[in-house]
Amino acid sequence: MKNWMYDGDSKVEPLISSRIRIARNIKNMPFPHNLSEEQCKNLIETIERAFYTSTHMKNDFKTIRLWEKDSNELKSYLEKHLISPNLLKTPNKSAFILNREETVSMMINEEDHIRLQCISSGFNLKEAYEMADKIDSMLEETLDFAFDENLGYLTACPTNLGTGVRASVMIHLPALTMNKEITQVLKALTQVGMTLRGLYGEGSNADGNIYQISNQITLGMSEEEIIANLEAAVGQILDQENRSRELILSKYKYELEDKVFRSLAMLQSARVLTSTECLDLLSNVRLGLEMSLVEGVDKAIINGLLVNTQPATLQQNISRSLNERERDIERAKFVRETLSNLM
Amino acid sequence: MKNWMYDGDSKVEPLISSRIRIARNIKNMPFPHNLSEEQCKNLIETIERAFYTSTHMKNDFKTIRLWEKDSNELKSYLEKHLISPNLLKTPNKSAFILNREETVSMMINEEDHIRLQCISSGFNLKEAYEMADKIDSMLEETLDFAFDENLGYLTACPTNLGTGVRASVMIHLPALTMNKEITQVLKALTQVGMTLRGLYGEGSNADGNIYQISNQITLGMSEEEIIANLEAAVGQILDQENRSRELILSKYKYELEDKVFRSLAMLQSARVLTSTECLDLLSNVRLGLEMSLVEGVDKAIINGLLVNTQPATLQQNISRSLNERERDIERAKFVRETLSNLM
Repeated sequence: MKNWMYDGDSKVEPLISSRIRIARNIKNMPFPHNLSEEQCKNLIETIERAFYTSTHMKNDFKTIRLWEKDSNELKSYLEKHLISPNLLKTPNKSAFILNREETVSMMINEEDHIRLQCISSGFNLKEAYEMADKIDSMLEETLDFAFDENLGYLTACPTNLGTGVRASVMIHLPALTMNKEITQVLKALTQVGMTLRGLYGEGSNADGNIYQISNQITLGMSEEEIIANLEAAVGQILDQENRSRELILSKYKYELEDKVFRSLAMLQSARVLTSTECLDLLSNVRLGLEMSLVEGVDKAIINGLLVNTQPATLQQNISRSLNERERDIERAKFVRETLSNLM
Repeated sequence: MKNWMYDGDSKVEPLISSRIRIARNIKNMPFPHNLSEEQCKNLIETIERAFYTSTHMKNDFKTIRLWEKDSNELKSYLEKHLISPNLLKTPNKSAFILNREETVSMMINEEDHIRLQCISSGFNLKEAYEMADKIDSMLEETLDFAFDENLGYLTACPTNLGTGVRASVMIHLPALTMNKEITQVLKALTQVGMTLRGLYGEGSNADGNIYQISNQITLGMSEEEIIANLEAAVGQILDQENRSRELILSKYKYELEDKVFRSLAMLQSARVLTSTECLDLLSNVRLGLEMSLVEGVDKAIINGLLVNTQPATLQQNISRSLNERERDIERAKFVRETLSNLM
């Protein structure tokens, strides 16, 4: 699996990354919100032991105990989509196990005891699922998971019952956003048991025109069905997005190019840059790259900027505390330096 | 006298150009609005004869008869500030005599029979006045001007009575515009008998933060007093503008640089550019050049763009008729090409 942030091999495409998340709980043990701090820490040890015993990639992984890290570092993991906002709510009880490539992240004591995530660059749900399934099977050799013959795997929230599998993609839909068709897309997805959310999950805005599409229903469906359904829906949305892009290009070629080239020029020249504006400009440049209107910025650069310009990650890379204005100045500097001498 | 549009010698400065305008009328002849087309054309011939007989620079000048030209070409002269909107109202009765450098323009049958203008680059009112005075004296050798011992030179509008001289400067005041002090400047100028107007004269907006400051009163004052008063007022305004700039720089250095560099980048990359936006961006880049925040764009380029991106001049240089959208596309192309490979 390739990390979507560093994938420099192929063309910039609207489908940024694919993710499989598996929820599991230990048999006969209350869900995390009913466990004490001590019980949670013991559980982390138990799960760690199971993980590092069974995995063949022992040296590749490390455990990050939330109570040992400062909040900015943790927010940076959030910005990289490696952990959820929920996990950060109980830093004294939670941990996650992460591989070096940052493609596998296993949260411990989020809503469920285990939330294993495998994230792959591009449209690769199957690859991500195979990895998740492999780790899940290895864990099951040691751990006894809560399972009901009728309901399947038991989870804290009933929407995750069954396979406990949620599949999602991160997708760039600027044309459908521009022409407001995104509202209809959301409606259609809801009707087939899927959901569309902004870049940073539930309730977040679609900054940078990047959305997450995922299945809402896990009960009564096999993992293969979940993935196949999502792939089909995403395929349709991609077609719709591409048709909208062609329409815009045929009607407003100059205006579209204007947007793309101005955005690139602003990223290359701004001295003060907010996070939201940065995401918007990156979206426009990304659109230009995806449509081959502009060249010379590769996938790793454009994807890397998406995360490295986020407040906490930016601050993390600079290694000092910044106020908002200083951050906007440092962001502009970082983006300018990253994009200088490129074109 | 140097033409402000092509003056590439010195630093970009807030004071763009200085102009002297002299109004004269032929004795015992009604003002132009009371003359028939035939009378006007005869008068043009009379004045032309006087001009080309007395001037020693005969080969340098040409007469442009408005009825022989298409309206776009005439508008382009307006955009270069060589003629007034008033002159264009009676194209069948009017003409102007222009030198090759486009620093001297003598309108015939505007509000007065003769409106002689001398325009010099930078803060050079005296130089412009000397040239205007020289031509005026030469004309007076042949022509008999309407003159009253008490009132001085007689003019169609009483505000021009006396010397018939109006002095004005074209000045870039972005800082006073930004901090809204420009309203107080206007009040103060009005109290001392001067006026402040936008780039294209009465009633026009100050697009590009460029203003015209001129004396309103000509009666009871010598030419020297008019010029000295204007010079003093303009000097004060320049000081005020510079203080405002320093204040902005000390408080908002990054924001100011952000504005300047983004504007330059947009001019270098836009694919669609309206005239108004273009003037705004040019004003920001000009401010950066004047404050030495940015380098590499010389005076002739920045001044040239100010005029060459105006609708009629742009169309004139492209030599074909364009609709508004096509003009915005061609303007972006022209600006991009002018500013490419500069920095």
